[in-house]
Amino acid sequence: MTPQDRTVGATRGRGRPKDPEAGRAILRAGLELFVERGFEGTSMEQIAKRAGVGKLTVYRRWSSKEELLSRAIEMMVEEPGWPSNDEIRVASPHEILERILPASAEMAVDPRFRALVARILGSSVSHPSLMATYWKHYVAPRRAATSALLENARRDRKVPVDADVDVLMDMMAGAVLYRVLQPNPPDAREMERYLREVYRVAGLLP
Amino acid sequence: MTPQDRTVGATRGRGRPKDPEAGRAILRAGLELFVERGFEGTSMEQIAKRAGVGKLTVYRRWSSKEELLSRAIEMMVEEPGWPSNDEIRVASPHEILERILPASAEMAVDPRFRALVARILGSSVSHPSLMATYWKHYVAPRRAATSALLENARRDRKVPVDADVDVLMDMMAGAVLYRVLQPNPPDAREMERYLREVYRVAGLLP
Repeated sequence: MTPQDRTVGATRGRGRPKDPEAGRAILRAGLELFVERGFEGTSMEQIAKRAGVGKLTVYRRWSSKEELLSRAIEMMVEEPGWPSNDEIRVASPHEILERILPASAEMAVDPRFRALVARILGSSVSHPSLMATYWKHYVAPRRAATSALLENARRDRKVPVDADVDVLMDMMAGAVLYRVLQPNPPDAREMERYLREVYRVAGLLP
Repeated sequence: MTPQDRTVGATRGRGRPKDPEAGRAILRAGLELFVERGFEGTSMEQIAKRAGVGKLTVYRRWSSKEELLSRAIEMMVEEPGWPSNDEIRVASPHEILERILPASAEMAVDPRFRALVARILGSSVSHPSLMATYWKHYVAPRRAATSALLENARRDRKVPVDADVDVLMDMMAGAVLYRVLQPNPPDAREMERYLREVYRVAGLLP
């Protein structure tokens, strides 16, 4: 145990985070460093340093960098305004998308979102657990909602009966990810136009 | 200058690459390390070591890691079988895609392709020059050909007249990139089915 670790465990009022906050500070520091430097450019030492705790405090909670970053991604993924099951039942896909489009466009062009998604895709082959966590906690709930929208659009004959819903969802999400990582990323206004066109091709907007 | 550098410059017949081959060996080593460890996990020292040359030999050619890897990506991108302008003029999009589909599916599921694309997307925010090089030398020529195919399909009323060709191309390419980086990547057979569905949604296959 380093002297720093003891300080964090105790309550000396020096402004260092106490235990529950230390956990969040470590995850926040891990996510920041992952976004800035990538998986291989980040070390447990750097994470401890940025979080203002000792290395042992970090290792006591997470035995590996992959585990720590996976938890950090899990903590980060929350996005208000996504349609509830009730809303999907009563409103048309068109109405729902018109409501969430501006916020979705803002989020897609947010530099932090771009950078985090780039890093997760970048480590998807070397460290697949990060992508798996992102998929489970972020992508899967959104795909469930989008799938329900596509089913409704199919019932209304806006989407062909024989369309493969998984492929359609990949085309929508893939286009957005690919677009924001291209040279010359769009601004929010251009992204909103872009999203409309994507949803139109998929049959979700007229 | 290190002793190793001098050996490479001279011709002592020790099996070390001579100058022109040294250049290619350095680029190959750089690309391998980039794929294995990412941009931040790769150093000029490691590249020199794997290429079997001294550090100075590397620095004499490329002043930065970003420049070296950018050139390595440029060297790597070649894909036979892409339709020529003549073929696009005389054959239907349907015929052309049927010809290139099996090779495209094989390439998309190739672990080296997946890993390289993951790394390029991963560094697209922190080191955009790598994506810019990939875009210029690999993506742009393919987009020009795909755009011509979409124009032909539009003329034949398979693609709506008001469709945004850039968005359609992002949806096709984005879906494939996104699919191969998801948990549980597909095999070549599943990828071929997947590509057919993607092209069908875009209006390029019936």
